[in-house]
Amino acid sequence: MWLKKLTINYSVLYFMQKKLHPKQAILDSIRLSTIFSGIKQPFQNKDDLLLIELDTNSSIGGVFTKSLTASAPVIHCKNNLKSSKSSSVRAIVVNSGNANAFTGYLGDRTVENIIEFLSKKLNCETNEIYTASTGVIGEILNPELIINGLKKMSSEHQTNWLKAADTIRTTDTFSKVSSRKCFIDNIEIDIIGIAKGSGMIAPDMATMLGFVFTNANIPSDVLQLLLEHANEKSFNSITVDSDTSTSDSVLFASTRKASHIEIENYSDNRLRNFKKSLDSLMLELAKLIVKDGEGASKFITVNISGASSKKAAKKIAFSIANSPLVKTAIAGEDANWGRIVMAIGKSGERADRDKIKIYIGDELVTDKGMKAKTYSETNATKHLKEKEVTISADVGVGRFHATVYTCDLTHEYININADYRS
Amino acid sequence: MWLKKLTINYSVLYFMQKKLHPKQAILDSIRLSTIFSGIKQPFQNKDDLLLIELDTNSSIGGVFTKSLTASAPVIHCKNNLKSSKSSSVRAIVVNSGNANAFTGYLGDRTVENIIEFLSKKLNCETNEIYTASTGVIGEILNPELIINGLKKMSSEHQTNWLKAADTIRTTDTFSKVSSRKCFIDNIEIDIIGIAKGSGMIAPDMATMLGFVFTNANIPSDVLQLLLEHANEKSFNSITVDSDTSTSDSVLFASTRKASHIEIENYSDNRLRNFKKSLDSLMLELAKLIVKDGEGASKFITVNISGASSKKAAKKIAFSIANSPLVKTAIAGEDANWGRIVMAIGKSGERADRDKIKIYIGDELVTDKGMKAKTYSETNATKHLKEKEVTISADVGVGRFHATVYTCDLTHEYININADYRS
Repeated sequence: MWLKKLTINYSVLYFMQKKLHPKQAILDSIRLSTIFSGIKQPFQNKDDLLLIELDTNSSIGGVFTKSLTASAPVIHCKNNLKSSKSSSVRAIVVNSGNANAFTGYLGDRTVENIIEFLSKKLNCETNEIYTASTGVIGEILNPELIINGLKKMSSEHQTNWLKAADTIRTTDTFSKVSSRKCFIDNIEIDIIGIAKGSGMIAPDMATMLGFVFTNANIPSDVLQLLLEHANEKSFNSITVDSDTSTSDSVLFASTRKASHIEIENYSDNRLRNFKKSLDSLMLELAKLIVKDGEGASKFITVNISGASSKKAAKKIAFSIANSPLVKTAIAGEDANWGRIVMAIGKSGERADRDKIKIYIGDELVTDKGMKAKTYSETNATKHLKEKEVTISADVGVGRFHATVYTCDLTHEYININADYRS
Repeated sequence: MWLKKLTINYSVLYFMQKKLHPKQAILDSIRLSTIFSGIKQPFQNKDDLLLIELDTNSSIGGVFTKSLTASAPVIHCKNNLKSSKSSSVRAIVVNSGNANAFTGYLGDRTVENIIEFLSKKLNCETNEIYTASTGVIGEILNPELIINGLKKMSSEHQTNWLKAADTIRTTDTFSKVSSRKCFIDNIEIDIIGIAKGSGMIAPDMATMLGFVFTNANIPSDVLQLLLEHANEKSFNSITVDSDTSTSDSVLFASTRKASHIEIENYSDNRLRNFKKSLDSLMLELAKLIVKDGEGASKFITVNISGASSKKAAKKIAFSIANSPLVKTAIAGEDANWGRIVMAIGKSGERADRDKIKIYIGDELVTDKGMKAKTYSETNATKHLKEKEVTISADVGVGRFHATVYTCDLTHEYININADYRS
């Protein structure tokens, strides 16, 4: 699929163009190690275990799947963050190949064993170790594989973020890395993030994971708020197939090495530039996940305006973005706008039938509760033939808006998901 | 697809075996007429307009789509039923080929014109005429086509329910008719129903419509309650693709010709046998719609027990039945039970991870929060190779249960919906 090929090249090029070189300040105190631990079947020398180490005094926040059958690592991370107001982090361990989800008390024990080993090795508290796992559900994850992997890791730490992103891939067809530079009090700040995910959110091999790092001097409680706000507009605004993984996690940590005075609260004006950069970095990672959506041939942006609340706007947008009928119509480049009307109607949120304005690209499709007089199906179809498609609707009842991102539903999605394990 | 072929034969055979012959009592006072009115493109002499006439004193109830962009006929039917407590009905007009949805004030006018003409012709009140339309969204429905069709209809009424069901088909691959006999006060009562729908609920050519008739002496307010209860367990318990049409309607009317004393309230014990028959008839029609689901190769039953409320049980069941990942796994005959865990988790309803018991067919898959010790993937896969698949889960928190029905997600669904209009 050309879109994927394009984004692979784009991703790598982007990475190189921004000169995200090992020598950057942020990387000095974040140490990356990867190894093949044997959780996955050996495949083209691909590693399956990533260790991210941070110095003492590093802060952390996290957001996680709302699934009630969340994985053992998710439950453990949540407890860590809840256990103290000023959480700190010394290491994040991530494996691919096994999600350690629906593995009962054995799954919890695996996490505990890993943490016990690593906290001794790093001479830190157990609640300073975070873990994340992605891969098959329901298979016991042997802690010895991970502990042996951690033991064997070279003491010469890598600083290769692309390799780190590569290690946590499952069905992803390319590695996802993004970085920004910004300023707090005229001090240059780095933000870097890696992510994985390609069915949002296929549970067994396509969980969404994200890890974002900075050197800004921000304590954990403020990091947490920054993450939650940025997450709402990025990872919480994408969908591939409406399915939610048991393992979705985004962790945001800071080395706090930057020399500006500590930021003490979320509404501090000095954060303005930082917030913009964080939002844009996380949105880029989220969009890369959609572009890598299972079977995706088109990237779709859905804009809703005129809704009665922010929540309503997002619900209507997701109703369109998750509709199999809308997604198949776009895959077929068919300007079947009745399906967009249907999806607005089924959202359950308020909309004024006679005021709804639907656009395919820039083409006004509906007006006054029926097909717009100026509507040209030729123009709409022309837009649908593009690789990036925009569907917009003003629902005519309020002043709130939302944007979500998705991909189309193709034969390739069925191929990947009907035949995946066999 | 052999399943469809089987059900076609089954449907026709069923119809014949039950000897649902024109001479039955119920048919004496319900007059059916069909004609080709020109709304659809001419195709194999298929009619596109159905008129169902009832004698004076006939009662009626109705349930409709919850879509906020409902079609003009739906809005009109709802108003009819709201306008008086003792609604009565003289005629139901149904057309296929055009949904008269998202057609603004012109759509409302079309309905008004049809009703004005027919109420004059039948010498009845305008609110005794009901209409339903299914077909393309957003195209103006010319009332003249329907009025001319009604004028041209032969005065010799047909009593062929199979032909009536055939007339309202759109993408349906077979006609859907079901009938029951039951007793009230030892008087034999007839119930007969027709339905259409094959994407539940593809909006432009696969809206779900149902029309059920009886001769039981039941007033409109009791009919309404009977319909709502039966509907909850039948048409409201099926899904093909999670999409909701702008036009879904089920009308339930009675000639009241049966000689028993009028039933005055829903909890009357004399209704026990009637309720059972109505439930079973509506469930049969609902299952026929799922079996005709776009691209369906397997019929799937999802049973949830142990939920904290009836509503929670149904929400969990639909979370499984609507999950593209579960549906593609079943299409691929892949016992990928992690996806069932995921779907339970994402429902948002309470479930005890360590008490969830999942079954594929009769095979226990999970126990104590992990894969059951006795689980045999061979057995589970064997069940998935059947044409009728059952997925069950006890979520371990309460005593409520629900059952919903769906079909798998196949390449054929993409073919039908990506290429439909082109």
